[in-house]
Amino acid sequence: MISKNQIKYIRQLELKKYRKREGVFVAEGPKVVGDLMRRYQPVAVYATEEWIASTGASTGSATVETGSATVEQRVTEITDEELRRISFLQHPQQVLALFPIPIIHYPLSTIHSKLSLALDGVQDPGNLGTIIRIADWFGIDTIYCSEDTADAYNPKVVQATMGSIARVNIIYIDLLTLLDSLPPSYPVYGTLLDGEDIYQQPLSNEGIIVMGNEGNGISEPIRQRVNHRLLIPRFREGDTAESLNVAIATAITCSEFRRRQ
Amino acid sequence: MISKNQIKYIRQLELKKYRKREGVFVAEGPKVVGDLMRRYQPVAVYATEEWIASTGASTGSATVETGSATVEQRVTEITDEELRRISFLQHPQQVLALFPIPIIHYPLSTIHSKLSLALDGVQDPGNLGTIIRIADWFGIDTIYCSEDTADAYNPKVVQATMGSIARVNIIYIDLLTLLDSLPPSYPVYGTLLDGEDIYQQPLSNEGIIVMGNEGNGISEPIRQRVNHRLLIPRFREGDTAESLNVAIATAITCSEFRRRQ
Repeated sequence: MISKNQIKYIRQLELKKYRKREGVFVAEGPKVVGDLMRRYQPVAVYATEEWIASTGASTGSATVETGSATVEQRVTEITDEELRRISFLQHPQQVLALFPIPIIHYPLSTIHSKLSLALDGVQDPGNLGTIIRIADWFGIDTIYCSEDTADAYNPKVVQATMGSIARVNIIYIDLLTLLDSLPPSYPVYGTLLDGEDIYQQPLSNEGIIVMGNEGNGISEPIRQRVNHRLLIPRFREGDTAESLNVAIATAITCSEFRRRQ
Repeated sequence: MISKNQIKYIRQLELKKYRKREGVFVAEGPKVVGDLMRRYQPVAVYATEEWIASTGASTGSATVETGSATVEQRVTEITDEELRRISFLQHPQQVLALFPIPIIHYPLSTIHSKLSLALDGVQDPGNLGTIIRIADWFGIDTIYCSEDTADAYNPKVVQATMGSIARVNIIYIDLLTLLDSLPPSYPVYGTLLDGEDIYQQPLSNEGIIVMGNEGNGISEPIRQRVNHRLLIPRFREGDTAESLNVAIATAITCSEFRRRQ
């Protein structure tokens, strides 16, 4: 059973201003909710009988087994019809949970000896979600996002990560400030149309890979901080695709870095 | 000026059955329409004053300069409001054109000494469009699609290709029949969870790379025809992403093949 006020509260979380005010975000489906419960304590869980039976959860205040973790929290049993009313998915999937937006205190010193991603104005929620999933696959722990990058806690992004948002640190930060705080020799990679063939360039296991906006690429001030300019070469003469989608370019770049390890 | 009947006709082309019956598909925006006009003669062009001015097109039966090609066809000038009524885009872009669905007679003999893609049940229009764009970038001329793959002439797919659909041959075919018609030694690559590390495997410049359905991967009968089983390795221990999006996996695979050339 779910009240009208609860429905209204959840639906409002589609908007960033409400997520920010409440400090919570929505996740849906057994995979995404399960992955998040391994790392974060949910604020609330609304689930159908099917999910409750399959996880062994009890309604009310109770412990729930989700894979490796046992967490104590409150599960509200709802009907399929109620789930449809709160869900942001076209095909709701058994469970919707609210999680606290993580406040990640991540000392900059940990940037050393690691590969990280920085997103400079990625706008599309699907692209952002896919990039988080790619980072997870390639063992990249942290993504630094410019303030004008899409919000990672948008329900569309959360779903597109397929649970990877539970395992990747997303940090919103002024990218110029971040890059200027690093030693000048710290490797900052960017894919640019006038860069050097990525397959031929030395690539290190430490550095930041900057990916730019869908239409405009990396912004001019950030571009000036890129000290390793890479290019994913085209393999067709004459008329060809003008560019690759930013998530595709991220995947190819991460693959090429990790291959060399 | 556009009639109610024309609006109805165009809107119906969202559905495959109407596209099939009429043999035409919709493309929108200067980039996609321009790229298609270099290769195909449009059946009809509906454009705002802005597009007509920038391309030097005349309304009525006339020749139109589109980059390298001059094509003769009919341009109907419409208002922004009329464009909104026929457009499938959230933000209509100056021009909407109808093109004949190409009937590609592509002798199987040309499969030799080339790299091609085969899609086994890719369902999402965005994924299909992105894969066509990747093929274009990596100089892959032909994509063989199983009959249950999404329709490449769906307006969402056409737009997601960003014009690459003009340069890549899309052939719907029974994949089993296709693969069985090839010599047993012909390389058929597939990415599978029990495959061998793609970075370590020999990859040729001739062959078919099979990509599977979003949820189920490559279907069992096709999997049995895969004679080079590849794996894109994960770079994280323990809990991690379970899979990569099919377009992402396609990009990484194509990049790895082309890098070796």
